[in-house]
Amino acid sequence: MTPEQLATACVRHMLDRDPASRSLGLEIVSVAPGHVALRMHVTTDMTNGFEVCHGGLLFALADSTLAFAANTYDEVAMVSSADVEFLRSATRGEVLTASAVERNRGKRNSLYDVTITNAAGETLALVRGRCARLGRTLLPPRQ
Amino acid sequence: MTPEQLATACVRHMLDRDPASRSLGLEIVSVAPGHVALRMHVTTDMTNGFEVCHGGLLFALADSTLAFAANTYDEVAMVSSADVEFLRSATRGEVLTASAVERNRGKRNSLYDVTITNAAGETLALVRGRCARLGRTLLPPRQ
Amino acid sequence: MTPEQLATACVRHMLDRDPASRSLGLEIVSVAPGHVALRMHVTTDMTNGFEVCHGGLLFALADSTLAFAANTYDEVAMVSSADVEFLRSATRGEVLTASAVERNRGKRNSLYDVTITNAAGETLALVRGRCARLGRTLLPPRQ
Amino acid sequence: MTPEQLATACVRHMLDRDPASRSLGLEIVSVAPGHVALRMHVTTDMTNGFEVCHGGLLFALADSTLAFAANTYDEVAMVSSADVEFLRSATRGEVLTASAVERNRGKRNSLYDVTITNAAGETLALVRGRCARLGRTLLPPRQ
Repeated sequence: MTPEQLATACVRHMLDRDPASRSLGLEIVSVAPGHVALRMHVTTDMTNGFEVCHGGLLFALADSTLAFAANTYDEVAMVSSADVEFLRSATRGEVLTASAVERNRGKRNSLYDVTITNAAGETLALVRGRCARLGRTLLPPRQ
Repeated sequence: MTPEQLATACVRHMLDRDPASRSLGLEIVSVAPGHVALRMHVTTDMTNGFEVCHGGLLFALADSTLAFAANTYDEVAMVSSADVEFLRSATRGEVLTASAVERNRGKRNSLYDVTITNAAGETLALVRGRCARLGRTLLPPRQ
Repeated sequence: MTPEQLATACVRHMLDRDPASRSLGLEIVSVAPGHVALRMHVTTDMTNGFEVCHGGLLFALADSTLAFAANTYDEVAMVSSADVEFLRSATRGEVLTASAVERNRGKRNSLYDVTITNAAGETLALVRGRCARLGRTLLPPRQ
Repeated sequence: MTPEQLATACVRHMLDRDPASRSLGLEIVSVAPGHVALRMHVTTDMTNGFEVCHGGLLFALADSTLAFAANTYDEVAMVSSADVEFLRSATRGEVLTASAVERNRGKRNSLYDVTITNAAGETLALVRGRCARLGRTLLPPRQ
C-alpha cells in the first residue's frame, strides 16, 4: 500500500467502528497522511437554544477529524487535549466541513490544526489538538 | 425571585429549548448563580472506535454545562473559546457528571472551569471556557 | 496617513513606551494592519537550566508581537488569553522571529496566530492569542 | 532523602542553573512533590506601554513555577504547551506569587495549574501547562 492508501484504510477502519461519528453523520471528504477532511450536516437535533449548532457538536466534528488525521499512519494516537475558538455559528440544514492539517509530529506527541468552514467558505471554528502516539498499530494484521 | 431561583429558571429555560443537550440526555444535577452541574449517561451511540466515550461528546457535556452556568444571571452569554484536557476515558453505561464553577466574571467576558467525573469520583476531563456577555436578557418578559 | 502608516505609528508608539519589550531587545521586522513581526536575539540571560531559551521568554516575544498586531488600528486592545505550543528549543546566540497574523476581528474581541521561527526557518513555537478591543484610541491627539 | 527533601533539591538545582529565572528575580516560596510556589517583584523593566506588568513576564513566572513543579521527582520534564488567562494587571513594585498544583501525572505527560496572585490575594492570571516526562534523572549522581 502507498502512504495514501494506508491513510485511507486507517480512516475507513476508524469511521466504520465509531458509533458516535456515525451518529453525527460524518462523511469522509478527503484523506492523506496527516490530513483528513470530514463533512457534517447540521440537523435539528444538533441545534441549541439559540437555534444554532451546539458548540459541543462543532467540536465533536473537529475532534473526529483530528483523531482520524492522527491515525493515518497506522499507529494508534489519542487526542490528549485541544483548544477551540468559536467564531461564527451554523444553522440547521447547513453542511460543514472540518479539515485537519498536521503542524508537528514528534516522537511521542503530534499537533493538528482543524478549521471548520461552511458552504460559503466562512470559518466557523478553529481547533488545535494535541495527540499522544501510543506506538501500536491501528489496523488488524492482514491474512 | 432569589438569585438561586433565577439561576434555576434560566437553566430550565435553556435546557427545554436545546435539542442537542436533550438528545445527549443531559440532566440537571444542581444549579446556583455561576454554577451548574449536569449528568450524562454514556450510550453505545456515544462511543468511538476505541470503545470509549467520544471525546467530542465529553466536550459537548462540558460545553452545555459551562454555557448554562454562564447564563444563570438572566443575561445571554455565549461560549467564545474553550480548552479541554482528556485525562481518562469512560465506557458505555457509565454515568458522568460535569460541574462548572465561575473563575472570573468581567464586564464583557467570563471564565468557567468544568470538571467531568465518573461515578467513582475520578476526573475524566477538565475544560476551561471563556464566554462573551451579550448584555441582553435570556428569559422572556413575564406577563 | 494610510492604514500601513497608521499601523507603523502605533507599533512604534507601543515599543517606545514598553520597557519590557525593550529589555528583551525586541526589534521591528515588519508591520501592516493586523500584522507585526518582531525579532529577538537569545542572550545568556534568556536561557534556562537546560541551556535553551526559557519558554516564558519565547512566549513574551510572541505576546508583544500579538499585542502590537492587535493595536495596529489605533484602537487599544489587550491580550486576554493565549495558548502556546513549544515545538523546538533555541540556544544562546540564535535570532528568532515572531510573526503575528490576524485570524478574526470581531466587534469586541480579535484573534491572532503567532509563529516563532529560527534563522533556519524552523518553527519553535505557536501561539494563539485572544484580545479584547477597548474602543479607545491608542495614539495621542496630534497637534 | 524524603520526597520533600528531594523536591527541594530539584528546585534548588534548577533555579541555580537558570539565568532567565534569576534575571527575573524569582524566589522560592514553597516546595513539595508536584508543587512549587515562586515570588517575583515587578520592576520597571517588567512593565509595558500600559504601565502594567508585561503579560509575557507574568507567563514567564508561571512557566518557571510549573516547570519546577514538574521536576520535583528528580525526573526531567519539559513544558510542552500551556494556556494562560490574564484577569487582572499588576503595577511596578507589586510582589506576585505563582503557585503550581499538579492536576494529573500520567506515564508520559503531566498537567499543572498555576495561579498568580498579588499581595491582596487577588488572582492575576491562571496558567494550565502540560509537561512531557523524559524519563531521565534531573540531579547529577551523588558522590
